[in-house]
Amino acid sequence: MARHVTVYEVGPRDGLQNEERVVPTSDKLALIDALVDAGLARIEATSFVSPQWIPPLADSAELLERLPVRAGVTYVALVPNGKGLARLLEARSRAAPSVPVDAAVFVSASETHNRKNVNKSIDDTFRAFDEVVGPALDAGLRVRGYVSTAWGCPYEGAVDPRKSASIAERLLGLGCYQVSLGDTIGVGTPNQTREILGLLLSRARPGSIALHMHDTRGTALANVLAGLDAGVTTFDASVGGLGGCPYAPGASGNLATEDLVYMLRGMGFETGVDLDRLVTAGELAQRLVGRRLPGRTLQAEIAGRQRAARRPGSEGS
Amino acid sequence: MARHVTVYEVGPRDGLQNEERVVPTSDKLALIDALVDAGLARIEATSFVSPQWIPPLADSAELLERLPVRAGVTYVALVPNGKGLARLLEARSRAAPSVPVDAAVFVSASETHNRKNVNKSIDDTFRAFDEVVGPALDAGLRVRGYVSTAWGCPYEGAVDPRKSASIAERLLGLGCYQVSLGDTIGVGTPNQTREILGLLLSRARPGSIALHMHDTRGTALANVLAGLDAGVTTFDASVGGLGGCPYAPGASGNLATEDLVYMLRGMGFETGVDLDRLVTAGELAQRLVGRRLPGRTLQAEIAGRQRAARRPGSEGS
Repeated sequence: MARHVTVYEVGPRDGLQNEERVVPTSDKLALIDALVDAGLARIEATSFVSPQWIPPLADSAELLERLPVRAGVTYVALVPNGKGLARLLEARSRAAPSVPVDAAVFVSASETHNRKNVNKSIDDTFRAFDEVVGPALDAGLRVRGYVSTAWGCPYEGAVDPRKSASIAERLLGLGCYQVSLGDTIGVGTPNQTREILGLLLSRARPGSIALHMHDTRGTALANVLAGLDAGVTTFDASVGGLGGCPYAPGASGNLATEDLVYMLRGMGFETGVDLDRLVTAGELAQRLVGRRLPGRTLQAEIAGRQRAARRPGSEGS
Repeated sequence: MARHVTVYEVGPRDGLQNEERVVPTSDKLALIDALVDAGLARIEATSFVSPQWIPPLADSAELLERLPVRAGVTYVALVPNGKGLARLLEARSRAAPSVPVDAAVFVSASETHNRKNVNKSIDDTFRAFDEVVGPALDAGLRVRGYVSTAWGCPYEGAVDPRKSASIAERLLGLGCYQVSLGDTIGVGTPNQTREILGLLLSRARPGSIALHMHDTRGTALANVLAGLDAGVTTFDASVGGLGGCPYAPGASGNLATEDLVYMLRGMGFETGVDLDRLVTAGELAQRLVGRRLPGRTLQAEIAGRQRAARRPGSEGS
């Protein structure tokens, strides 16, 4: 029997948040619809950060209330603090009762990145989680944890695998059902991935660990392969590679979901995602942000569709 | 001690041949110079195909005669037939006597692609090698073999790994010192790579096998990782990903050399290639072809250089 791998889609939140163009709520919902149609069952939809910080996410409550209800689909919303959790819980109380929403918290593996990102030390960030993680669990939400800069930091350089593994363990200890290790600036290479996972998986079960790779240097799927070999079964990705790289304008950021699904399918893993419909969602994402997205498979498939459309006699055949 | 991996640069031939813009000979030589400066020691420089077939390669003899002489650097020229070999040998007799040039022959693993490519069956292609491989070896040249469409064919779909492995073995049997397996349309995934290599490496030594991956669907470095794990120590790549994908305009083709070198360096392999100088060669390649190249690391590094140049007080520091 084919082994199942969970593809965790982050495009609507992580992707769109980092795009220059602000996408209207209805367009975000159209993209989420297209992703659900493609078979994605874990979708990071929005973030309850302060709208002053990140204006593209000011519609988080409205978006959550309008999320499409579909059997088996779980959404995730980031909550940076108690205020964010209160807003999430309020919006959730107005949403359809059958829409499952997980909360997610984030912290960096490097002190400097964490301070630049949330203006707190790593320890203070964990202290602030007290008003988020426990109350979220008490309210019946599952909580996912993110470790940013787990491979390297734009300010400090390479991050010690023991540091990344220990931050991940702290998050699991708090009650997170899963921790996603993020290669925020896309510097990770497979031996490093094996080292981090070797440390973590000697203590945590594979299902509690996810990888969130960036393709900034083309290494995302090589790191995914290292993860698969180590037993990891959840990988984050963004439709079309939506999101760019905040540290290198024009460069690639998030691993593209199509590339991930293409490789997993080729390796015989079962993901539940239909690649053809996913490409249709990627085409929509391109229209919404008004630029060509960096996903390799997306571009190859779009070129293939255009070629097929130009072929004589292709209509009706 | 760090294991050595050979990075085999195909940009000047395979890359430029597939670009829309025809690059003048002096510019090709400037690119080769920059690649040699970056530490690349195996460079596929040109092809002695009929100039009527591929006009950008009409300067093959002139180019070969003007190749820079540098200790440890070997060039390679494709020879499709006896006439091509005669032209190569003649040009070689006029080149600096100390410039080592290998010959290379190519055949597809799929019958349809081979017929479309060279207008012959696979068996007839091997028969035609009689007037190339033996005579080249007799003239003191080493001969490299290429197996195109070793993972999949644009006409026939997936290719049986046993077929690809058997074509590679036939080439080794003819006297090729190394066979490079090409994922011409970039469809390969790691399990398939492991299967092909498992078949081949049970009989051939790892040094006699190279992988030539395309990054059309983002899987190139994942396949390289599968190759490294299997013991392969030579990988083909093209500066900046030069070359595009002949079957999908606008999509990515060859694995970018910078991406390959970045991952190998991160994994502790010794390549002799200086990534910074390689990025400089990639910038030159972009200017020569007049377009942004698809290599991920190249774009990230260029963005990094631009950021550094904009930083206040960066001058002279």
